[in-house]
Amino acid sequence: MFDLLPKTVDIVEVGPRDGLQNEKTSLSAQDKIDFIDQLSLVGFKRIEAGSFVSPKWVPQMASSDQVMRAIKRFDGKRYSALTPNLKGFDLAMQVNTQEVAIFGAASESFSQKNTNCSIKESLERFAPVAEKAKKHNIPVRGYVSCVMGCPYEGDIQIKDVVWVSKALLDMGCYEISLGDTIGVGTPLKTKALIEACLQVIPSNQLAVHFHDTYGQALANILTAIQLGISVIDSSVAGLGGCPYAKGASGNVASEDVVYMLHNMGIDTGINLEQLIQVGKSISAKLNRNNGSKVGEAAP
Amino acid sequence: MFDLLPKTVDIVEVGPRDGLQNEKTSLSAQDKIDFIDQLSLVGFKRIEAGSFVSPKWVPQMASSDQVMRAIKRFDGKRYSALTPNLKGFDLAMQVNTQEVAIFGAASESFSQKNTNCSIKESLERFAPVAEKAKKHNIPVRGYVSCVMGCPYEGDIQIKDVVWVSKALLDMGCYEISLGDTIGVGTPLKTKALIEACLQVIPSNQLAVHFHDTYGQALANILTAIQLGISVIDSSVAGLGGCPYAKGASGNVASEDVVYMLHNMGIDTGINLEQLIQVGKSISAKLNRNNGSKVGEAAP
Repeated sequence: MFDLLPKTVDIVEVGPRDGLQNEKTSLSAQDKIDFIDQLSLVGFKRIEAGSFVSPKWVPQMASSDQVMRAIKRFDGKRYSALTPNLKGFDLAMQVNTQEVAIFGAASESFSQKNTNCSIKESLERFAPVAEKAKKHNIPVRGYVSCVMGCPYEGDIQIKDVVWVSKALLDMGCYEISLGDTIGVGTPLKTKALIEACLQVIPSNQLAVHFHDTYGQALANILTAIQLGISVIDSSVAGLGGCPYAKGASGNVASEDVVYMLHNMGIDTGINLEQLIQVGKSISAKLNRNNGSKVGEAAP
Repeated sequence: MFDLLPKTVDIVEVGPRDGLQNEKTSLSAQDKIDFIDQLSLVGFKRIEAGSFVSPKWVPQMASSDQVMRAIKRFDGKRYSALTPNLKGFDLAMQVNTQEVAIFGAASESFSQKNTNCSIKESLERFAPVAEKAKKHNIPVRGYVSCVMGCPYEGDIQIKDVVWVSKALLDMGCYEISLGDTIGVGTPLKTKALIEACLQVIPSNQLAVHFHDTYGQALANILTAIQLGISVIDSSVAGLGGCPYAKGASGNVASEDVVYMLHNMGIDTGINLEQLIQVGKSISAKLNRNNGSKVGEAAP
């Protein structure tokens, strides 16, 4: 059953963007810079560092340009940002963003509520971003949200996840990250979804982004790696709550993922002891509980 | 990879004993009785309801006789208690305990620290209990603690888990519950351990008891059911902290296990909605956080 387990896994640390964006407390630009630098030193090779969207909508990300300008850069590491439109993309390029991301949904209602347009319209908006990125030789990551369920619609059809994923891939995304936005996925659904996606997307272009709202994230990640998936999104200390269930967990904690992988002989390049300390320190700074069980158990 | 998944799983609810025993707040006998009755109504068929040990050592369990006398009994349900010696067994029989449990360890140091004797000596002490239980036609469950690691010794050899398990089986235990007392197990270790145990113990006589101290419990349970294991210990609201890591999680929460199983098409006979309410209510009574993510996310 563990025949396809990858030998190494790339963790995409989404704490500084997806995490902080959903925290009550806002960090100063300098605190974010320090935080990202710490994550670099811990060993992450891919860090989602900011978002170039209107600060009217996402005030927590208003300092992304400052952050991108000031963070330390390391050979072999990439710092990415969300760029939902050309304006955002251009701003991102001004501050040496090495990878951009666009954010699609598998749910029509979620797309309407979050971006005020249909899924198809959102894809049309992303196309010029992907095109310009290609000209700049900038890798584009495609997120698909609500892959296991939608806070407005409930169940989501696998075929809808597959066609949106394929559309993003065809647009030029080098990788598709499947997001269980509300954390309702379980291993059997995860298996069915990934197997369907693997019909049209090679396994080395597929990533998973699980939320731990119902405690299922690690079991789902285990399922994904059993199917050969080797890129996992997570957030140190589980930063970023769940906007759809008050007080509930959101992103799976990087510490817990790394603990599982390392103890299964899978390399991530991350120093877990140091990561735990970063998680404790950012939790204290945000005055929140540490969302990582490994972090809580560690001295 | 999911070929061996069981169609039904029996959950052994350990909250009233293993859970409450490790909580700071003690419940009155009446509160325990109400709690166990609620768990019966929720659908559990096997509930660990008490412990007949010296109240000097485990004051939280002092009212086990009162509890056993007063709880409602239902056809097809069994209420068990820990009985480490003949005195405990006799007390348990006086109050109509339908199943008893004995508690071995795979770690020599743990056995010494917890029971002041070697593993072999502990087995010698259990033998007369198992013998007398057989005469009374009372099923005996054998626990093995520290199967994935020991708080004093660290790593534990698989062969040590296997021989203690086999010894308990040979003594007459109808089922062996493998306990990851400190929650350090991960899926690869779980697979290796269960496969080794299955060499000497039939799968329908093997149960798993995972702690979620490092967030790994559901991933380990997923591994166990992939290997055909169909009896899982858990504790509503994750009752019972971890005595070896302050503030950390102990028993995996029943709600989170049931959520995963039901959403994988595996029947447990438990009403999840009602279980969530029992978890919320007992957490409030104990003035503690709800240790179930499903419980936290539910309205």
